[in-house]
Amino acid sequence: MRIAVDAMGSDNYPSPDVEGAVQAARMYSDEILLVGDRETVETELKKHDILGLKITIVHASEIVEMTDKPSVVGKTKPDSSMHIGMNLVKDGEAQAFVTAGNTGAALTIAMLYTLHRIPAVKRPALSSIIRVHGNYVTMVDIGANTDSKPEWMVQFALMGDIYARKALKLERPRVALLSNGEEKGKGNQAIQETYEILQAYTHLNFVGNIEPKDILNGKGDVVVSDGFIGNITVKSFEAFGSALSGLIRSELKRDPISAMGGLLARRAFARVSRQIDPFEIGGAPLLGVNGVVIIGHGRSNAQAIRNAINQARLAVSGDIVQSIRDDLIVSR
Amino acid sequence: MRIAVDAMGSDNYPSPDVEGAVQAARMYSDEILLVGDRETVETELKKHDILGLKITIVHASEIVEMTDKPSVVGKTKPDSSMHIGMNLVKDGEAQAFVTAGNTGAALTIAMLYTLHRIPAVKRPALSSIIRVHGNYVTMVDIGANTDSKPEWMVQFALMGDIYARKALKLERPRVALLSNGEEKGKGNQAIQETYEILQAYTHLNFVGNIEPKDILNGKGDVVVSDGFIGNITVKSFEAFGSALSGLIRSELKRDPISAMGGLLARRAFARVSRQIDPFEIGGAPLLGVNGVVIIGHGRSNAQAIRNAINQARLAVSGDIVQSIRDDLIVSR
Repeated sequence: MRIAVDAMGSDNYPSPDVEGAVQAARMYSDEILLVGDRETVETELKKHDILGLKITIVHASEIVEMTDKPSVVGKTKPDSSMHIGMNLVKDGEAQAFVTAGNTGAALTIAMLYTLHRIPAVKRPALSSIIRVHGNYVTMVDIGANTDSKPEWMVQFALMGDIYARKALKLERPRVALLSNGEEKGKGNQAIQETYEILQAYTHLNFVGNIEPKDILNGKGDVVVSDGFIGNITVKSFEAFGSALSGLIRSELKRDPISAMGGLLARRAFARVSRQIDPFEIGGAPLLGVNGVVIIGHGRSNAQAIRNAINQARLAVSGDIVQSIRDDLIVSR
Repeated sequence: MRIAVDAMGSDNYPSPDVEGAVQAARMYSDEILLVGDRETVETELKKHDILGLKITIVHASEIVEMTDKPSVVGKTKPDSSMHIGMNLVKDGEAQAFVTAGNTGAALTIAMLYTLHRIPAVKRPALSSIIRVHGNYVTMVDIGANTDSKPEWMVQFALMGDIYARKALKLERPRVALLSNGEEKGKGNQAIQETYEILQAYTHLNFVGNIEPKDILNGKGDVVVSDGFIGNITVKSFEAFGSALSGLIRSELKRDPISAMGGLLARRAFARVSRQIDPFEIGGAPLLGVNGVVIIGHGRSNAQAIRNAINQARLAVSGDIVQSIRDDLIVSR
């Protein structure tokens, strides 16, 4: 397998991006195409022992910055590492592209400038994979679309199901619809209509509405939502986790006995951190375009990049793009 | 001041409801009307020393259960404690009604059967007050309306501002719009339109969009959203808080040194709990009906009920209902 990796993607590029790619090349023996400014990447690669690893640099003269506007960067920087990396996938030179860069830009460049959407797909959708009690939950859409129509959300469900089956190897994923209550009829108009279609017209293992708490209790394998609502939910999880962790840290310092307790409990806290660390998954696919694109967090470290490359491997070996092309029609 | 309290509201009624009312009567010297089944409430009151307190029982022969459907209970149980309590407010016998009962039922009974909406108000909205670094943030709407139109959300902003100024005594509340990014243009169509109106046509101290993390960082005093989106956000905060706390508790038990650390850090954990305890606020107003109605959580304990009664006192002394009647017109 040959995977293209954006060397200029993460907030701290190229260091985590290159190191993660080197780790992946060693761990999985796959071929890695590092896309970015040749000189910069060469300098970075020299810090690592890459003897025997299949790593090639593909030059890209431009860089998409986090501050670049997604709506214009597709046009203004046609030689960015994102463009070139995705075109490698389009031309069959690579089987997947992994980036920790500007998410909005990645969506635009994928959908409008390089890979384009699969014809049967109304709207490509961004997924997020979260770990819940050791299992993976695929949330889709978490940010590519707002004001999603029911027929788009039904496709998010179908694509999420394909990803969970083919890449994550779940036998019969429980597909749930994100809402503010379990009962049928909860949620806004679009959710109520999506519920009807999912229940009556698809072959999915549709388990009904799911509340935020039951996402975290593992009651669904694929959680479907409008991109704005999914985004707010994921951001609310992150925000509360970060606020609560900060509060615990500061309160542990406020009296000496608690501080001692905090030190003794370090191993427990480390186990907690590992279990909620988004970098353990590294990235998640943009579903519905003509190629595997895995998008990671801007703050990604090397381990996150390596894990995102592994998500790319799973998506490629599961042949999710072809499955989406073949299986996305809902018969009504 | 005379405040009506639903004695049959909370999940464990009447015990927390009655005890909280007794505490409030003692603490604030206000008159409390306990609304519920006379015999049940009398039996419960006998467990407390109420000598010198101004507590009167108002009999209600029916009880709204948590399992009752909001859409029908308004009609099927006209003698519920909710109906009778709200009618006491309507008739001027009490200045406010406090309930920890079925939220959906309380909304329906208030809006359609007893107090009704204030004529200038398009849609009454449910607020939630959260404590952030010792300050209060008013979120509105968190569940009364879905698919909110921009003009409704503008009114949520105006009502939230009135509440924050008059009841919470903030001088010039920062009003923010819940979205998935700070920049203007983020969010769905309704949010983008609401942004325009709030910025151009209101006198509010509008500070733009706010992300979930910045709610918790205290960057807004009033956070405006559609009720479905506000509900999902609040539920996501609660869900992640609960999941993370559970994970920490179980990991602390998994090795003996961490367990010892957890014991030593008990005081820090207690301080953390107090700071994120929703019962410290107790309840929040339904804004836009002809009377003060404070709705608390079903799981309320006595302290939560007492604090909800205090929220009612603040709303009454701030005269928020008259302010909403007077000040809700947006001139465009």
